Amino acid sequence: MNIKLNSLVKTLELLMKEKFSIANYKKGILDDDRMILSRAITLIESSLSADRKNASTLIKSIFPHTGNAYRIGISGIPGAGKSTFIEALGKHLTSQGNKVAVLAIDPSSKISGGSILGDKTRMAELAKNEMAFIRPSPANSTLGGIAEKTYETILLCEAAGFNYIFIETVGVGQSETEIYHLTDLFLLLMITGMGDELQSMKKGIMELADIIVINKADGENKENASKTALEIKQVLHLFASGKSKQEPVLTTCSAKENTNIAEIALLLENFKETSITSGQWAQKRTTNARQSLLREINHHLQTDFYSNTFIQKNLKKIENEVAKGFITPQAAAILLLKNYKAKK
Amino acid sequence: MNIKLNSLVKTLELLMKEKFSIANYKKGILDDDRMILSRAITLIESSLSADRKNASTLIKSIFPHTGNAYRIGISGIPGAGKSTFIEALGKHLTSQGNKVAVLAIDPSSKISGGSILGDKTRMAELAKNEMAFIRPSPANSTLGGIAEKTYETILLCEAAGFNYIFIETVGVGQSETEIYHLTDLFLLLMITGMGDELQSMKKGIMELADIIVINKADGENKENASKTALEIKQVLHLFASGKSKQEPVLTTCSAKENTNIAEIALLLENFKETSITSGQWAQKRTTNARQSLLREINHHLQTDFYSNTFIQKNLKKIENEVAKGFITPQAAAILLLKNYKAKK
Repeated sequence: MNIKLNSLVKTLELLMKEKFSIANYKKGILDDDRMILSRAITLIESSLSADRKNASTLIKSIFPHTGNAYRIGISGIPGAGKSTFIEALGKHLTSQGNKVAVLAIDPSSKISGGSILGDKTRMAELAKNEMAFIRPSPANSTLGGIAEKTYETILLCEAAGFNYIFIETVGVGQSETEIYHLTDLFLLLMITGMGDELQSMKKGIMELADIIVINKADGENKENASKTALEIKQVLHLFASGKSKQEPVLTTCSAKENTNIAEIALLLENFKETSITSGQWAQKRTTNARQSLLREINHHLQTDFYSNTFIQKNLKKIENEVAKGFITPQAAAILLLKNYKAKK
Repeated sequence: MNIKLNSLVKTLELLMKEKFSIANYKKGILDDDRMILSRAITLIESSLSADRKNASTLIKSIFPHTGNAYRIGISGIPGAGKSTFIEALGKHLTSQGNKVAVLAIDPSSKISGGSILGDKTRMAELAKNEMAFIRPSPANSTLGGIAEKTYETILLCEAAGFNYIFIETVGVGQSETEIYHLTDLFLLLMITGMGDELQSMKKGIMELADIIVINKADGENKENASKTALEIKQVLHLFASGKSKQEPVLTTCSAKENTNIAEIALLLENFKETSITSGQWAQKRTTNARQSLLREINHHLQTDFYSNTFIQKNLKKIENEVAKGFITPQAAAILLLKNYKAKK
């Protein structure tokens, strides 16, 4: 208790100063100081250029302590029961001595910036659990930006010693492909009775899944859930011919009644073991690293281009010429690029 | 009949040769020769670098003949009745002497490349109509690629004299923002009874809409459709405070029974007139042109980067170092960019 109080006082002292030093951030994260971890994530989410520079240095300094968590993407449409499911699974995993971080990503409305996920009060019990850490992501980032910042947040959580990291997204097809490239396993939460057409709409997302769980398999809905699981299995098998990816494992659960949750935790462990043995684990991590690199390249290419003196001076003018139809967007882009490369 | 036969023979002769010349393409398009228009779109959709070059020259040459169509984005989830609606609206518009092009974009499954849209047999009657032209887009393009190629396809159709161009997407939130930036008006097709949560999921898309049409307002469903329209209107009004964008117009229709279709065509015309008078029309076109330019810049930046000799030689090596955790993706990207700029 005394040690905790000491640590709190120290953190408060640091908070009085405007900014932590990178060394302070690093030490706090490695000590799993949640207040410092939270502030570090806020630093990473900032788009101020000074913050970006510090974030980059911080990531570099904690990088040797990363890579050890099981990164799990969880997706499902609103109403599939994602919060309840993650809370049930999280409680089970922490009871087994695991440290669980939940990063919730909300790709909602670009215009109003409104959130459909709400905040961490959604997982009230897990939020109070000392072995767990819940962090909602800001709603108004760009799509590519979400992946970039989520990747860095995963690294911070790994450095803080979390060994299970859940990345939660709303399954509307927008960010699933990105999340797929950040994680070791992709779990899709579904429910019965969504209608044939909505199910078929989600085929692309289902194909990304390693595990598909039909939730709300309780009461009168239990039999239906099993039937839906079987149907999906058959559909996916039909489409699977010639694909290199393993077909997803299908199962059901009731997060509300805590049924089959321990079994799903076991499925996760089995997937990891099989995947490590077969070499797929390492291969996926390599692919993911490559994706991160390509994302960073794209980001830095754009930053460098738009901060170029010639571009800053002439972009507006060329934009107007494109708008007036004097020049095609393509010809204008080629012209700008030529000047960008000539005049640094 | 004879003239048509002549034109057909000439087209066939041209088809015997490997490629058309750009001048042939241009003439064919300006003459609204559908076979040549189709081949030109295929050229634009190609990613071969020789084809890209020809496509670019072609776009430049027809560019002075573009910009005159009413570009309309139409979106809705599977089951909303998009095909029937577009067929009904298209038939009405062509009967009034308009030339209507329909570009159908399918953002489905990346892994299997499967299509959920089917092909133009969906709009059988409109497909046979000489005043109409229906073109489905390939399913396996990247998201940004879809917008780029759709923009160029719009230009080709405008050069061929189409004055209404419908761009149809499946409303799952993936491509709506991109289509919004390609069009003058965004029409969202909805149905009743989708469930509260699914409706709220679509709030982001609804906010983009200029017109929202509740389809299948027929038989017993008629009253419900009007009720849904009213509810959506109220929800959007609630969220609209402080936004610069006009609230969407709400209406109902039955595409199947051809009810209220002529009225919707009139709504489209009214929107255009009001929008031109207020200056919003020109403003949106300017914003759209800017978006096209930014897309092209991004495309050309990436193409130039990855074709650079140093990058081609060293990317693989650096990728491996990132995968092994020797260097962060960000540090690697900065290193690559530095060398890219130094060694052309």
